[in-house]
Amino acid sequence: MLTMQDALARLTAYWTDQGCLVVQPMNTEVGAGTLNPATFLRVLGPEPWRVVYVEPSVRPDDSRYGENPNRLQTHTQVQVILKPDPGNPQELYLGSLTALGIDVAAHDVRFVEDNWASPALGAWGLGWEVWLDGLEITQFTYFQQAGGLNLEPPSVEITYGIERIIMALQGVTHFKDIEYAEGVSYGEVFGQAEYEMSRYYLDDADVATNRRLLELYAAEAQRLIDEGLPIPAHTYVLKCSQAFNVLDSRGAVSTADRAAEFARMRRLAGDVARLWMARRDELGHPLGVVSPLPPAAAFEAATAGEAPRTLVFEVGTEEMPPSEARAAVEQVRRELTERLGGTRLAHGDVRVHATPRRLIAVVADVAAREPDHERTVKGPKTGAPEKAVAGFARSQGVPVESLETAELNGVPHLVVRKHEAGRAAPAVLADVLAKVTGSLRSAKNMRWNDPQLAFTRPIRWLVALWGDEIVPLAVSSLLAGRDTRVLRTAAQPAVSVASAETFMETLAINGIVANADDRRELIVTGAQDLVWDSGRIDVAGEAALIDQITYLVEQPTPLLGTFDEKYLELPAAVLTTVMRKHQRYLPVRDADGTLLPMFVTVANGPVDVERVRSGNEAVLRARYEDAAFFYRADRKLPLAAMRDKLQRLTFTDKLGSMADRAARIAALSLSLREPSATLERAAQLVKFDLGSQLVTEMTSLAGVMARDYALHAGETPAVAQAVYEAELPRSAGDDLPASVPGALLSLADRLDLLAGLAATVGLPTGSSDPFAVRRAVLGLIAVHRAHPDLAGIDLTAALAAAGALQPVEVPAAVLADAGDFLAKRLEQVLVEEGHPVDRVRAVLPHAGRPSFADLLLAQLGRLITDPRFLALAEAIQRARRIVPDGTPAGYDPALLKEPAEVALHETVQTVRRELPADADLSRLTAVAGRLTDPVNAFFDEVFVMADDPALRAARLGLLATVRDLGAGLLDWPQLRL
Amino acid sequence: MLTMQDALARLTAYWTDQGCLVVQPMNTEVGAGTLNPATFLRVLGPEPWRVVYVEPSVRPDDSRYGENPNRLQTHTQVQVILKPDPGNPQELYLGSLTALGIDVAAHDVRFVEDNWASPALGAWGLGWEVWLDGLEITQFTYFQQAGGLNLEPPSVEITYGIERIIMALQGVTHFKDIEYAEGVSYGEVFGQAEYEMSRYYLDDADVATNRRLLELYAAEAQRLIDEGLPIPAHTYVLKCSQAFNVLDSRGAVSTADRAAEFARMRRLAGDVARLWMARRDELGHPLGVVSPLPPAAAFEAATAGEAPRTLVFEVGTEEMPPSEARAAVEQVRRELTERLGGTRLAHGDVRVHATPRRLIAVVADVAAREPDHERTVKGPKTGAPEKAVAGFARSQGVPVESLETAELNGVPHLVVRKHEAGRAAPAVLADVLAKVTGSLRSAKNMRWNDPQLAFTRPIRWLVALWGDEIVPLAVSSLLAGRDTRVLRTAAQPAVSVASAETFMETLAINGIVANADDRRELIVTGAQDLVWDSGRIDVAGEAALIDQITYLVEQPTPLLGTFDEKYLELPAAVLTTVMRKHQRYLPVRDADGTLLPMFVTVANGPVDVERVRSGNEAVLRARYEDAAFFYRADRKLPLAAMRDKLQRLTFTDKLGSMADRAARIAALSLSLREPSATLERAAQLVKFDLGSQLVTEMTSLAGVMARDYALHAGETPAVAQAVYEAELPRSAGDDLPASVPGALLSLADRLDLLAGLAATVGLPTGSSDPFAVRRAVLGLIAVHRAHPDLAGIDLTAALAAAGALQPVEVPAAVLADAGDFLAKRLEQVLVEEGHPVDRVRAVLPHAGRPSFADLLLAQLGRLITDPRFLALAEAIQRARRIVPDGTPAGYDPALLKEPAEVALHETVQTVRRELPADADLSRLTAVAGRLTDPVNAFFDEVFVMADDPALRAARLGLLATVRDLGAGLLDWPQLRL
Repeated sequence: MLTMQDALARLTAYWTDQGCLVVQPMNTEVGAGTLNPATFLRVLGPEPWRVVYVEPSVRPDDSRYGENPNRLQTHTQVQVILKPDPGNPQELYLGSLTALGIDVAAHDVRFVEDNWASPALGAWGLGWEVWLDGLEITQFTYFQQAGGLNLEPPSVEITYGIERIIMALQGVTHFKDIEYAEGVSYGEVFGQAEYEMSRYYLDDADVATNRRLLELYAAEAQRLIDEGLPIPAHTYVLKCSQAFNVLDSRGAVSTADRAAEFARMRRLAGDVARLWMARRDELGHPLGVVSPLPPAAAFEAATAGEAPRTLVFEVGTEEMPPSEARAAVEQVRRELTERLGGTRLAHGDVRVHATPRRLIAVVADVAAREPDHERTVKGPKTGAPEKAVAGFARSQGVPVESLETAELNGVPHLVVRKHEAGRAAPAVLADVLAKVTGSLRSAKNMRWNDPQLAFTRPIRWLVALWGDEIVPLAVSSLLAGRDTRVLRTAAQPAVSVASAETFMETLAINGIVANADDRRELIVTGAQDLVWDSGRIDVAGEAALIDQITYLVEQPTPLLGTFDEKYLELPAAVLTTVMRKHQRYLPVRDADGTLLPMFVTVANGPVDVERVRSGNEAVLRARYEDAAFFYRADRKLPLAAMRDKLQRLTFTDKLGSMADRAARIAALSLSLREPSATLERAAQLVKFDLGSQLVTEMTSLAGVMARDYALHAGETPAVAQAVYEAELPRSAGDDLPASVPGALLSLADRLDLLAGLAATVGLPTGSSDPFAVRRAVLGLIAVHRAHPDLAGIDLTAALAAAGALQPVEVPAAVLADAGDFLAKRLEQVLVEEGHPVDRVRAVLPHAGRPSFADLLLAQLGRLITDPRFLALAEAIQRARRIVPDGTPAGYDPALLKEPAEVALHETVQTVRRELPADADLSRLTAVAGRLTDPVNAFFDEVFVMADDPALRAARLGLLATVRDLGAGLLDWPQLRL
Repeated sequence: MLTMQDALARLTAYWTDQGCLVVQPMNTEVGAGTLNPATFLRVLGPEPWRVVYVEPSVRPDDSRYGENPNRLQTHTQVQVILKPDPGNPQELYLGSLTALGIDVAAHDVRFVEDNWASPALGAWGLGWEVWLDGLEITQFTYFQQAGGLNLEPPSVEITYGIERIIMALQGVTHFKDIEYAEGVSYGEVFGQAEYEMSRYYLDDADVATNRRLLELYAAEAQRLIDEGLPIPAHTYVLKCSQAFNVLDSRGAVSTADRAAEFARMRRLAGDVARLWMARRDELGHPLGVVSPLPPAAAFEAATAGEAPRTLVFEVGTEEMPPSEARAAVEQVRRELTERLGGTRLAHGDVRVHATPRRLIAVVADVAAREPDHERTVKGPKTGAPEKAVAGFARSQGVPVESLETAELNGVPHLVVRKHEAGRAAPAVLADVLAKVTGSLRSAKNMRWNDPQLAFTRPIRWLVALWGDEIVPLAVSSLLAGRDTRVLRTAAQPAVSVASAETFMETLAINGIVANADDRRELIVTGAQDLVWDSGRIDVAGEAALIDQITYLVEQPTPLLGTFDEKYLELPAAVLTTVMRKHQRYLPVRDADGTLLPMFVTVANGPVDVERVRSGNEAVLRARYEDAAFFYRADRKLPLAAMRDKLQRLTFTDKLGSMADRAARIAALSLSLREPSATLERAAQLVKFDLGSQLVTEMTSLAGVMARDYALHAGETPAVAQAVYEAELPRSAGDDLPASVPGALLSLADRLDLLAGLAATVGLPTGSSDPFAVRRAVLGLIAVHRAHPDLAGIDLTAALAAAGALQPVEVPAAVLADAGDFLAKRLEQVLVEEGHPVDRVRAVLPHAGRPSFADLLLAQLGRLITDPRFLALAEAIQRARRIVPDGTPAGYDPALLKEPAEVALHETVQTVRRELPADADLSRLTAVAGRLTDPVNAFFDEVFVMADDPALRAARLGLLATVRDLGAGLLDWPQLRL
């Protein structure tokens, strides 16, 4: 059996063979190998660096007294840095797994998007978690920035989690059972330390002491920065970090502290990084300087044939995130179509495909060459001085005699007519494809060893074939060819393609399903086939997950796995969250929709099914065991104690802790209307489950766990439901609160968020919406609309009340902006639902009461064909047009003499008398319908603008009264009749 | 070429193959691998433990900005712990060198005594430095105690200094030039850190911050001890240690701090150790419990022949310290002789030999058996009751009838006469040798894997042969045989011996020179032969070193090495100190005694001469380079600045810094008599070189360097000589100050030491004399005696003056005791010089003025045959016998009437008149000689005890005057005439 210490030795030896230096772990506590100066400092600057080292990584927060089978306060990382990117780091990495004795062809090894950022270090990178049969065993990151500085060249960082890998390889379920060395278990060697250090971090570390240590370390770091000594300064930054982590695990980090401490560490780390760079410059870069890859030299295109041929263009990448792969399809299609359109090359359909590792464009019938073309070059006007004419001819390289004359904009000019031969397809395509490749961009782009390109992940190869000819495409350091790559674990991972026409077939033969629809189909039918005897996959319900899986594999291989029935005692949401979010497994349900103890995972390519199945089952078991551990622990804790923990969670720097926020939500919910006993209790509890271990681990379970824990603690079902519903809706299309207490809490939650953030962070602009305010406002609208019983609640007023509860001042202008923001979202929602824009705008004065706006819209839909309403509306609009703005709705009836005006006066007074204050449109129409005739008669028979000013005023006052009959109910001028 | 990282990997792999666990370096700064819990905690208690790890070891004090070629603030250790002792750890260790590619047969690998103790950890062990061609590459220790607890079983600790080993293997002279990994130098990777961390430790660490850190760490350690958590507590003890080291390297550790801090750390480390032991007990010793080696089962002796044969008895050990090997020779001789004497076995001469690895006893003509013997067992008195008689017979296993009668002490008893056959030699010898082996003890004893034995180093094998028979000797786990061991690097390291008679020859054939005289001869003649062309070895001057070398090798192989002439510019004392003390090299001088740039080292056994030579030369070069580095740096520093550094050196806790002590010495020296200008200046400088780097490194050069640096700084030769002489004599037989200023400083130095320590630590008792007060007092006497010109200085008075200068009160009683101590030493010295005890005691009243005592003794030697002196002495003694104690020397001459008494009166008055106050014995004899006749006449003619009281008083007064003539000059009653 491969012992843990053997594994460390083998990895070290493997990477040493790849030219890595071996250094020692940091001799002060660090949370990860990244913090070791052999990474944090060495990734900076232009010097090459290849290193491998072991790093015992201390995470005080992960302390579990050695009881949790998968979590340790100190775990062992093997850290590898490759700088510059060697161009094939994934292949080198797979080699290291082979060195560990892992058969990478039999197992399912996957690179799953995982981006990394450490705000405290001013560092980030893009990369993957590497999965071995569903188990995350490695972090693989292209480091882009550290200490706030761009890394040029970027480094590849590979971080192995050794305990996990060894547990998987040895098939043990508790870290203590790892065979550390022959005949000696991990628990025997490190068990006591695990327990005692957990005791220290969780219970016994002296808070005052660690606080003072933190300050002393920070001051010393600053002094050393001032002295220009980055290395000792860095050591003290690390000591700061550890002291902070100890305080955090002891629950002693206050709201204000955390943000301040992160800011300080970021500043110190940035200073250290800059100093280090400067020192290395001074020292003349002792390890040398990385030279960028040279540009690829394009070859001459072969002579093209004459017949149109297919163009295939493949951009080979390392594993793209699913969303980026999908987005790239559209981008390639658009770019390629536009740029081909900019040439004179005839071509047929453009089809684009994406898999995790490639973008493929197939263009049918691309002509062999552009047609020839005559171009007119404009010269001086006819009759220009001879010198100018001669100069023009010379500049065009033609004798003066060959100049012709042409009318340009009606003026005769001397011109040269040039015959341009159409270029051959390969040359044209080379230009086009180079531009397409260079223009590729994703939402978040990275750099690798290529000196110019930037994309979501590295581009490693290009295939460009027009028929059977290679398009002479060279982009930066890449040269296109006819070799594509198939599964890395294939016997022949690179395959030569004969011609564009056989490209897709070649891929298919080699197992690559290039078409996403095909892959989806394979996944869905494969999964259903696997479970058919026992249950079903909810294909519609899991559509998003299936879409994601479609872009996680190139050759979908669904596998059925099972788990112990005992875990079904965990809440279903826990089970499915783990399956979907953490593992991308498809849950299986029986006919009633009840979860079955099984799952479908989709491996990539031909694997050893039994091994991969059992590996994935072990991962799920470990995760469920973890969850069960938290679940049991949480259920032992009184709700009040859990809620108390909210004091330790920061909401935002200026808006206090999560406990503060929960208190505001409670107060606000109780003020929205006379509270029920259920609401009163639910308000006391709201958000308490954020203090539970399970929700800390899986934040998406907030609310769900609150309901579960509340019920378990003996709260009424109504209260439990309300604390759950307080979190609804969690996303677009999610369930909405069904109960009134739930709805009130949900509204209060979102109003608090909107008011607080509008006043501190500002309202969302463009794509920047870190606190998901937009989603909260949409939730606000949805909840209100779902509860006509709460139509009386005016969100605008409630927003002001929420503002008054904030720990910061929320100015009226901010509230007004927030109200506008809300109205805009409502307008958008209603229009998207298909309501005519004019009607939507007409009801928008009621944006504060979206359910009332709904009512009005519904009535409008019916009344819009009702002659009485039309007449009324017409009357109102007509009155509005005549009556000057600002004219009050009042008049002296004694001045009215004409029968028509007297009749109108009497009808108006009747209507006003009969119309209730809260009339809606139907009522208005019913009551005011009788105005139709008198109004018409009035306009026919009465001349409003009488010479007698008093009479004119009375008539205008009468019309103003008509105008105002529907005032406040609709924005009448918006309505197009 | 073996790179450093390859070497780390190979050592790790080698020890892993020997069953060691691999763990990681400590993730907080440590000064040595010993501090890692994988050593410090794991050596405690009964659990087995084998581990190997790399430990970057931080020594702030060794910071040199990366400039010194051999010294680093962080160097790399590989640490191995073997628990229990596997029985052959040295052989395993040699295997590790082979794994590094070192040909241990070609090189000179030696185990040179080096005992280890860490008072701050309450830890100690015995072992060696391992030398590779003179270079210390490893510390090899049998750990005996840690945290103040005895280690049962003891552990073997092997600590490699990797940088040194690699420098030697790669043949580079600066650590920066080590090839760390292929194509990458150590300097390129670690150079900047070495510089910056040196800056931190030497210049930039904030003293106040580190002081506060130290206190916080210590408090946290204590809290964790109180919480019963040894592992985190240990971490904080380590942090204490590092903070303390930082303060120390910043020169911020005050007198009182150091002792207090060590005491605190010792206490904390002890608590941690005890807690750990208790926790492991509680946990039931997860790694199991070491079983002790079983006792060896002695076999039956073969039937002995009848002829006397030789006995050979060999105790095979690991390398003993030279002094212990020599002491063991005497011990074995005594024990063996005595215990053989306790048997009835006839035998001839007992000869005992020792080499580093064996003690050999050869006993000639050991009889084949003891003679038969008749033994009488005493029973009851004749006529005792029948029951008693029967009981006696039964107890002796004989019938009552066979009892005989014998007179015992004149009373007739019943007895049994038993005939006892003499035992055969092997059986007798087995008993004797078992006792001899078990009784072996050294000045400092250790334990190893044997459950019972204890000795200076482990005993690994026994040979015991009587003629050609094996003596059936079993001692604890060891069983004697006929296999001895020769050089470890021999083709056949174990050799079977045919018979006792051929034992020495067998050793000789295998290269072992068992006889120390033979080895010494080989060394001396070999060395002289090597240097004969150019110079000589001063055999007499180097006798002590040669004696030591004799016990460092079993097969002396002298080699000649050279060094660069440029180093001859260093003071000769520096060169020879390095050669003798550090390297055990013999210096070579020309006819004038001037050093030549060469040396002789003595390897053990047949080696590759060229390799060993060049290795040793490289070591010497590195040491001289080091010394030259310090020497140059020191010479740049003004003397005053160097002297200022004395403030950072503690003398003792209560007696202040070395600067305080130097100031006291200066003040005292100036007070001893009217000072010269030379003394005034020298007093300002005295001891300044203790602040130099070179003396810090080689304390034995104190004084020598002072002279050198003083001359270089432009002081007068007289001043330079005086500061040098202030340190003389440094040991028994050393030079004495020749100049008066030098002598005065030397006296003041030793008086200060005596007064201060007598008042604080106490005077030396038995073998405990940590501050070498005894040596100082002997120096005091020697200097005074060497300077008759200073005879006027009374050391007793000067001691009081020294006492008055101390920072503590020195009570009169202490001064009196110190004076007595001085007098006793003087008595001892004088007696040892051959002076008769009575005379010595007679002059001891002048112990405060030893040179005056010398004068008196010399006079006594002459006068003792002078009748005048004898008569005078007789008269004085006679007077003393008659005159009662306390009688004053005065009388009324008018009362004296008898002619004899009048004559005596007149002569006495004349003598008194003529005797000068400071008369010595010669003068006294000359002047007082005339008293002979009058005294004799007085005693013949005058009856002293007259009846008349007045007359009697006058006569006694007259005699008292005679008595007192020599008072104060001698203690007359002591003198035996």
